[in-house]
Amino acid sequence: MVRLVPRTTKFFEMFSEMANNLTEGARLLKAILQDMKDVEARVEQLKTIEHRGDEMTHELLTKLNQTFITPFDREDIHKLTSSIDDVLDFVHAAGERLVMYKITDFTPSAPQLADVIVRQSEQLCQAVAHLEKKNNNVLQYCVEINRLENEADRISRAAIAQLFEIETNPITLIKKKELYEVLETATDKAEDAANVIESVVVKSA
Amino acid sequence: MVRLVPRTTKFFEMFSEMANNLTEGARLLKAILQDMKDVEARVEQLKTIEHRGDEMTHELLTKLNQTFITPFDREDIHKLTSSIDDVLDFVHAAGERLVMYKITDFTPSAPQLADVIVRQSEQLCQAVAHLEKKNNNVLQYCVEINRLENEADRISRAAIAQLFEIETNPITLIKKKELYEVLETATDKAEDAANVIESVVVKSA
Amino acid sequence: MVRLVPRTTKFFEMFSEMANNLTEGARLLKAILQDMKDVEARVEQLKTIEHRGDEMTHELLTKLNQTFITPFDREDIHKLTSSIDDVLDFVHAAGERLVMYKITDFTPSAPQLADVIVRQSEQLCQAVAHLEKKNNNVLQYCVEINRLENEADRISRAAIAQLFEIETNPITLIKKKELYEVLETATDKAEDAANVIESVVVKSA
Repeated sequence: MVRLVPRTTKFFEMFSEMANNLTEGARLLKAILQDMKDVEARVEQLKTIEHRGDEMTHELLTKLNQTFITPFDREDIHKLTSSIDDVLDFVHAAGERLVMYKITDFTPSAPQLADVIVRQSEQLCQAVAHLEKKNNNVLQYCVEINRLENEADRISRAAIAQLFEIETNPITLIKKKELYEVLETATDKAEDAANVIESVVVKSA
Repeated sequence: MVRLVPRTTKFFEMFSEMANNLTEGARLLKAILQDMKDVEARVEQLKTIEHRGDEMTHELLTKLNQTFITPFDREDIHKLTSSIDDVLDFVHAAGERLVMYKITDFTPSAPQLADVIVRQSEQLCQAVAHLEKKNNNVLQYCVEINRLENEADRISRAAIAQLFEIETNPITLIKKKELYEVLETATDKAEDAANVIESVVVKSA
Repeated sequence: MVRLVPRTTKFFEMFSEMANNLTEGARLLKAILQDMKDVEARVEQLKTIEHRGDEMTHELLTKLNQTFITPFDREDIHKLTSSIDDVLDFVHAAGERLVMYKITDFTPSAPQLADVIVRQSEQLCQAVAHLEKKNNNVLQYCVEINRLENEADRISRAAIAQLFEIETNPITLIKKKELYEVLETATDKAEDAANVIESVVVKSA
């Protein structure tokens, strides 16, 4: 049934939970890439975190569809939820590539990219928390997430250019190129989330 | 001119036609992958089906833009139309890869993935038919389409992992990897369609 | 503050500026691909054009969020802006591949694809200009942009099929395949823009 008395706070709580869960996943991925032991078991853990994220997404969208009055535009709630979910999907996909392709070595660019995702996730947690209070600081977190995406772009471009210069085994090249690309795509999705938050702030100004 | 007396039934008929056309395409792709003879001529047939799908999509979106009162949210009608169209695009793209890359052999994973797409398309036909009657069964078809996407994910991941283990020719590897990925993407798009239908049901509950 | 007196003309001016900037970028890419000298410096120029496009996009979306009455559906303004931005992103990405992968030779398909993007961009400029006047000609530009996308599809498919036939170095194949794909994706995004314009016209008919 449509809820007539809006309990809009719940949406912000749910976004916070999603952003925290994403941060947990990003930190685990970074830890795996920094120290490649027990990779299979730890990627399994990452999968559990990703599944939890899927459930949170499903719950949030169901709640959205059942709620009449929402704290901000329905379409923006939908987009923000999907973007945060996408970041975690790519975080998990990066871990999965390690197992599927039996990747065991890479340049420091891989953990560096994971670190960028961790920092973006932390900024997303802050942005979501401040969004509720309609605090002007929100925009500064969005700007930082965008800056981090540019940083990731530079790192992955340099890593892939170097790969084409030094890697002579084409199959190894395919594997590592995809790892860098998946990591970089995660940072693009975080930027999408930041852009939604920015537009929510600007609309309500 | 904007039609003031809504003839909302037409939308459901059009969705049914799109889902049936998709099912026809998916079945043809599966038949090709199960028995690789006359590939070029049969992929040409698949192209005809895909073109018909494009025309149905165009017609449905034009009708949507000309209609004032719609049976459910305009944005959802748009998304559902696009998702069904996308599934068929990837079904056709998979067939096209066979011709373009002159792929002649692959593991049973390829026809298995096509079979998953056939089953998703059949479920989509059911979901669309029951959506009109606001039947509660609709959700069960959506759940099944999601389950099938997970199945496709497992099949394609295993197929690609195996490919990296046994294929020593990198160019052959690139071709087959893309075939599996295109097939898997078709199942993702079917999941997108199911998610739209689910949200339509939840909203109207 | 929300502007109560709409100055809707500004949106059309901004779309025109975006389409002109895109055309400038597409022409530069075509010129680079036709005569591969000073590639690095000219791709740097292309980056400057792409950054300008990013700023125009940001400005247009901010204005959209601050404006109460818009000349056509907010969602369509958002989609059109994003699509034009996407075309330029892929135009720039194509140039970037030349530098990153040190690509120095390719078949005439590459400049031909760039030429298709130039022609689509010119049609987009016309479509946007005529959209404001609610001129019926708008649709003819959209049809032409769609036709050009089909042309690009044929060119890139033939180029990639040929690549798989003659290129024996898998790493070179990976580089060139990606160049053709990135160019073709730019033409897809131009088609997305044309589809938004078409739907705006149909809705207001």
